[in-house]
Amino acid sequence: MTEPAALQPIDPAVIQEMVGELARFGAWGETGVNRLVYTPEWVAAQDHVAGWCTEAGLEVERDAVGNVWGWLRGRKPGPAIVTGSHIDSQKPGGRFDGALGVAAAVAAVRAVRERHGTPRRTVGVVSLCEEEASRFARTNFWGSRAATGTIAPTEADRMRAIDGPTMAEIMRDVGLDPERIPEAARDDIGAFIELHIEQGPLLEAAGLPVGVVETITGYRQYWIDLRGAANHAGTTPMDLRRDPMAGAAEIVSGVIDTAHRMGRPAVTTVGRMTVEPNGRAVVPERVGFTVDARHPEPEALATLLARHEGRWAEVAARRGLGLAVRVDSDRPPCPCDPALVETLAAAAAEAGVPTMRMTSGAVHDAMQFASVCPVAMLFVRSRGGVSHSPDEDTSAEDAAAGVETLARALARLAS
Amino acid sequence: MTEPAALQPIDPAVIQEMVGELARFGAWGETGVNRLVYTPEWVAAQDHVAGWCTEAGLEVERDAVGNVWGWLRGRKPGPAIVTGSHIDSQKPGGRFDGALGVAAAVAAVRAVRERHGTPRRTVGVVSLCEEEASRFARTNFWGSRAATGTIAPTEADRMRAIDGPTMAEIMRDVGLDPERIPEAARDDIGAFIELHIEQGPLLEAAGLPVGVVETITGYRQYWIDLRGAANHAGTTPMDLRRDPMAGAAEIVSGVIDTAHRMGRPAVTTVGRMTVEPNGRAVVPERVGFTVDARHPEPEALATLLARHEGRWAEVAARRGLGLAVRVDSDRPPCPCDPALVETLAAAAAEAGVPTMRMTSGAVHDAMQFASVCPVAMLFVRSRGGVSHSPDEDTSAEDAAAGVETLARALARLAS
Repeated sequence: MTEPAALQPIDPAVIQEMVGELARFGAWGETGVNRLVYTPEWVAAQDHVAGWCTEAGLEVERDAVGNVWGWLRGRKPGPAIVTGSHIDSQKPGGRFDGALGVAAAVAAVRAVRERHGTPRRTVGVVSLCEEEASRFARTNFWGSRAATGTIAPTEADRMRAIDGPTMAEIMRDVGLDPERIPEAARDDIGAFIELHIEQGPLLEAAGLPVGVVETITGYRQYWIDLRGAANHAGTTPMDLRRDPMAGAAEIVSGVIDTAHRMGRPAVTTVGRMTVEPNGRAVVPERVGFTVDARHPEPEALATLLARHEGRWAEVAARRGLGLAVRVDSDRPPCPCDPALVETLAAAAAEAGVPTMRMTSGAVHDAMQFASVCPVAMLFVRSRGGVSHSPDEDTSAEDAAAGVETLARALARLAS
Repeated sequence: MTEPAALQPIDPAVIQEMVGELARFGAWGETGVNRLVYTPEWVAAQDHVAGWCTEAGLEVERDAVGNVWGWLRGRKPGPAIVTGSHIDSQKPGGRFDGALGVAAAVAAVRAVRERHGTPRRTVGVVSLCEEEASRFARTNFWGSRAATGTIAPTEADRMRAIDGPTMAEIMRDVGLDPERIPEAARDDIGAFIELHIEQGPLLEAAGLPVGVVETITGYRQYWIDLRGAANHAGTTPMDLRRDPMAGAAEIVSGVIDTAHRMGRPAVTTVGRMTVEPNGRAVVPERVGFTVDARHPEPEALATLLARHEGRWAEVAARRGLGLAVRVDSDRPPCPCDPALVETLAAAAAEAGVPTMRMTSGAVHDAMQFASVCPVAMLFVRSRGGVSHSPDEDTSAEDAAAGVETLARALARLAS
């Protein structure tokens, strides 16, 4: 390996330019992006990433779900070191979530090639097709689940987009054959490293540009459905009501309080609620809402979930409400590979990038790859902790510090 | 007057038949009705009521907003005794809410004519065009407010239907000229009596077919808007959140508890809620909801409202949430005229109909007429207290007992 001191460091302006290029596909206002999987703007963005890979001297491969892979072949056979993230967005989201990890992957692998020539091990870039569940409410991680072979055979026909068609129909519209999804599964990945914006306020609070993730949070997402009796708001005495709104309010207060009292890093969120019939002068018949609960430590997560489940069982029983609970997502905490974590930390130290160890409260594609190989993540500071919003922002200097760390880590792993 | 003993009593089958006829216009499933003001089914229903009036020997008049009036002219000039209700429905509602009062009015005035011939005072039937706020979320009592001259000059242009157009546009579509709304205001009404289903469980609990209303509840309806900061559900620590859902849950629990603890007849309902952005994994930025609070006693109502207003001010301030409060409706309790109440009670006693005195927790057109004349109401037992639902039901016998009481009261007042 060339001595670090002799290297041309990653140029912040180049990373900023790459993020800006990608943000033009599905641009939303001045700073936002609205780029749902398999839309024309998404197709154009993936083509653009493929162009980057070609320019960077990488061998481009597109798989059965539309993930774009860029390969810097190594001198020896064997599993590759892969880095990347996703290019789909929230509706609208910002320009950094996912996209920065894709731009960083191309820039870092290009730097490995420019600095060191052909590496010993193959290094790969991946631009994953879908992670956000922004077009398909009931499915996400489409790209990383395809690559790791965990998409169920009937899923493409079963999952409907919020705009109506099934995943299978939408795939066919962009020239992909849903029958071939299993062909996207790979056995050539030896490690997966994802660079991502933090999407939270902790690096900013610590005054650090980059974080090394030790664990990705575990979480469970519920849909809670409470049924009572619809009644006239003026004529039904309070003591005769079976009011699911009263029950929902009590449960929502309870689960939010429980997470708050458990202390960091426990979090519980109620982000979505529907009321039927949703009339001003009608005691509701039915109130449904989401509960999203997360903790990176398995035992603490189990405690948090047990308290939540006890809460709604008790409230519904006491109030005579019908209760149906659906678990929509359920993942245990995902520890990052200790050796990869140490490699990232050493690479950052070598580059003079100050870091801290942290957990990820958000879920990421890296969790999916953890089922087939060791994984790790680098976080880059988010201004104000804002994410899933056009206001999302990360400085070019922080982004470049992350890419420099990633490039040096890839060089260490591949050499 | 003819002696009561010689009268042919009101036939339950006739009332049931009339309710069934009207329910065909806008029929919803087996038992429901979906008949919004100024729709084709509403036009057909009003025409049908006009036909009933003609058959009953009444002089039909249609006013500038589409109320249908049927007059049994008295021997002497002077203000009329009017009875009636509204023919619009919830979406969907039942076949009795409003419609029973219209059918009862026609049947009762017909009975007055058949039993006593030309009365001394004029007796009138009215089928009011709109009461439910089911097509126009921000306006209701359209018929009774037109008749009492309380529609603001700009209101028809300002109010938009839930399906888009303004009230003025919709009126023009059915051949009514919104410029002429002021012409619907009348000065010839000397008393207004409305028969209505109870829409609550109290008569059923007491085992009585008919109630005599002494007071119609006062109420205030609010829209509460809480603004916080949208954030990622996984990455924002609980202690750094400004979560309007947490604030809403605390307020909703609080206002419902407050009304419950105050005891009957205080009622408070949160029937509608909207969440933005309404995403499973996003701490909401904004939560809005209705609060509907009612009490028939002025001082108790003021106490209830003050407690609610204190609650949301305190919660919003403590949680750092933006608070905007809009009052959409605000009415003091409406006492019924004591002389009319006594007349109704005496008429019921004469007919052998057992009754109790009660308050109305629902609001009614009668409240609007209270600004121009003495008013009173008769309630008829609702099966299971159900209303604003296709499951609404009232027995033919109870309905006929109400109509018999109404007919005898009208005869007393007009003779």
